[in-house]
Amino acid sequence: MDGSRTAGQGIRPFLVTDLYEVTMVASYLRRGMLAPATFSLFVRHLPPPRGFLVAAGIDEAVDRLTAFEVTDQDVDALTGLLRCPPELLEPLRGLRFAGDVRAVDEGRVVLADEPLIEVTALLPQAQLVETAVLNAVAYQVAVASKAARCTIAARGRPVVDFGLRRTHGAEAGMAVARATAVAGFAATSNVGAAMAYGLRATGTMAHSYVQAFASEHDAFSAFATEFPTAPTFLVDTYDTPRGVDAAIQVIVGRGLQDVAGIRLDSGDLTAEARAARARLDAAGLTRVKIVVSGGLDENDVDAMCRSGAPVDVFAVGTKIGVVADAPVLDAAYKLVEYDGRPTMKLSPGKAFLPGPKQVWRRAGAPDLIARRDEPGPGQAEPLLGVVVRDGVRVRPVSSVADARARLEADLAWLPREALDIAAPRAPRAVVSGELTRLAAEVKESYARPR
Amino acid sequence: MDGSRTAGQGIRPFLVTDLYEVTMVASYLRRGMLAPATFSLFVRHLPPPRGFLVAAGIDEAVDRLTAFEVTDQDVDALTGLLRCPPELLEPLRGLRFAGDVRAVDEGRVVLADEPLIEVTALLPQAQLVETAVLNAVAYQVAVASKAARCTIAARGRPVVDFGLRRTHGAEAGMAVARATAVAGFAATSNVGAAMAYGLRATGTMAHSYVQAFASEHDAFSAFATEFPTAPTFLVDTYDTPRGVDAAIQVIVGRGLQDVAGIRLDSGDLTAEARAARARLDAAGLTRVKIVVSGGLDENDVDAMCRSGAPVDVFAVGTKIGVVADAPVLDAAYKLVEYDGRPTMKLSPGKAFLPGPKQVWRRAGAPDLIARRDEPGPGQAEPLLGVVVRDGVRVRPVSSVADARARLEADLAWLPREALDIAAPRAPRAVVSGELTRLAAEVKESYARPR
Repeated sequence: MDGSRTAGQGIRPFLVTDLYEVTMVASYLRRGMLAPATFSLFVRHLPPPRGFLVAAGIDEAVDRLTAFEVTDQDVDALTGLLRCPPELLEPLRGLRFAGDVRAVDEGRVVLADEPLIEVTALLPQAQLVETAVLNAVAYQVAVASKAARCTIAARGRPVVDFGLRRTHGAEAGMAVARATAVAGFAATSNVGAAMAYGLRATGTMAHSYVQAFASEHDAFSAFATEFPTAPTFLVDTYDTPRGVDAAIQVIVGRGLQDVAGIRLDSGDLTAEARAARARLDAAGLTRVKIVVSGGLDENDVDAMCRSGAPVDVFAVGTKIGVVADAPVLDAAYKLVEYDGRPTMKLSPGKAFLPGPKQVWRRAGAPDLIARRDEPGPGQAEPLLGVVVRDGVRVRPVSSVADARARLEADLAWLPREALDIAAPRAPRAVVSGELTRLAAEVKESYARPR
Repeated sequence: MDGSRTAGQGIRPFLVTDLYEVTMVASYLRRGMLAPATFSLFVRHLPPPRGFLVAAGIDEAVDRLTAFEVTDQDVDALTGLLRCPPELLEPLRGLRFAGDVRAVDEGRVVLADEPLIEVTALLPQAQLVETAVLNAVAYQVAVASKAARCTIAARGRPVVDFGLRRTHGAEAGMAVARATAVAGFAATSNVGAAMAYGLRATGTMAHSYVQAFASEHDAFSAFATEFPTAPTFLVDTYDTPRGVDAAIQVIVGRGLQDVAGIRLDSGDLTAEARAARARLDAAGLTRVKIVVSGGLDENDVDAMCRSGAPVDVFAVGTKIGVVADAPVLDAAYKLVEYDGRPTMKLSPGKAFLPGPKQVWRRAGAPDLIARRDEPGPGQAEPLLGVVVRDGVRVRPVSSVADARARLEADLAWLPREALDIAAPRAPRAVVSGELTRLAAEVKESYARPR
């Protein structure tokens, strides 16, 4: 498999909907408000400390859109939920998404205010899908963005995903495995995700395995017998130096010096890694790898690399899978045009730019956010492309490998200060003259009494 | 529907598995290590500020256990993932969970170190389900525990769940709606969850609805026509005082003074609520309700209630659905007994108590954590009961209403300082003499060379 599928897990997309989408759409349908509308999904502010975001969850959002359907049974159930006259919801029967979607490719770097997705459809359709789209995109962008920082912090050493047990459910675990792979992780512990997306699976052993044997030596010997090609021994169940010595005995005894590893999962990992490295090296086991795990995030990885800790593999999970420092991304799905009329919102701190847009990426210059239909600058690449036309997907789901390649190219484009781990500076896109003028006009029109 | 179902969303439970479970189990099966094992799921430390935890996700974990099965196709795929000799994984074919599960009922208050679930089965079965169980329980406990604090902070005013758009996927959104209902939330915006669990559905309107009309007055009038029984008008799209006045016009014009509400979603919500209340009252609309939303957590709710903000309904989402201040719960699933031999771990900061356990809840006294089979103290209630016997569920899935009733009873049992919002003090369970002696014996046995 090549990773060309999304994490969609069998909840029908229409059920991933806030009630107010239904009430608003019932009103639109009743009034014949069926003109085309464009909604734009973007992130208002990058959470600190982030220097960039990574597009992810786009293909899952698109899968939800193209599968979106309101069934007869849904309408019957909704009539009960809303306690409203049945005829009000009748027009929703059979509603599907038949509009267009323009989106950024997965793996692209995106910045604040840059649309990740623009949906253009009849107003009821474009409105009804709001929650399903935001729910797919917001957290996957958050995960991919934090994971990319881990990859950068590790400076070429492999980082692997151990997050499944603490992600917010099984579906989230699948999405995290995929998003971290896009972000450059080398493997995942998640069996279902490895199977589904063709990722490399990885793992060592649990403390319970060591406990189930009479001694660490017995446990390591057994594991080496079963898995002689690349056994990694967990050495901190009782007393780490003793655990390392037990591993050394087994590695030497079995001739595993070129393939074995040890894992440290507690204590001061830098100090433990140095002590373990010294013991291994003293035994001539200079090629035995050291894996560390235990609540690590990109800041820990960065600190360990800076301090020269002898770590070969970073296993991260918990803090990446739930985006522990910034679990909410300030993503919005906003109506920017209805019936040919650009719209915007002026709420304090929540204003946004009106109208459909394009983002132009330029070498050696900031991104340019422009009106969708104005000509782009020379030597610039448009970030948004058509993915769905008339409700049908016209661009295939991105493979993980393609998304990762896009991310690598975009990271090379970013200014160095955006890549800093401790205190990154996020570049800002500039806004085209035409779009600036449009925003001023729309704002001015709202100031007039209506 | 009565909420007697779990959020399970069609990912086969075996796929919610870390690779190391498979390698360890393959080793156990190959060696005939088939003796009974007991694993205990507990939370090591409550994240600050928390004074208690709420049991949730238990029924989903049980559903995963009873549906757990390794298929032929799984084994074939695993052989490829592990790059190991096919015969090593053969014994996994058809493996199901046929053991016993004791668990705390959903909605019960639990404290640090108290087992939420104990799984007793042949070692390979009990080990293989680890990730699937932790993945179901850890975050649902985190969500229910934070949500219960919101309910407490609101002091009887309704709190509703608006979190779906920012939960970590659709499955998480379902679980959040259910867990927040257990925690006492009055309603959810989540259509699928309301349908599945029989919850009250709620919602207002989005800014896009207001924008789609020529004016706020037109938008509110239309909404009042479609939903005259309980319309709530969103008043902050352009300028809040003007929005409130538009709502007042429509409410008065349509005679909605006994059923209508307004929603504030930006700015200083306490100040905005006071200003809006004054305008409404001046118009004689003293019964029009004020709903507030926008990144609220229990601290905001508490502060608004303390300051006497005239708020009738708190809509919370983002920060509760992702447990923004503590998205990771330090939950562990640990081998506490194998083949009649109690086991424990001594890793720094990660030690735990050996052996199967029972937790006894006593009026006016701390919880007592004891050995499973020692006699309980008088006048005490055991928290763990048998849910699964020989792989078959023997206690039905809890309804949301029953779980909520349990929580309410347990909150009345908790000391007041555990319920504080800003600086709660979590009670600690005490450990029985027998269990203390057992722990000392096991620790002592590990100190002897093996």
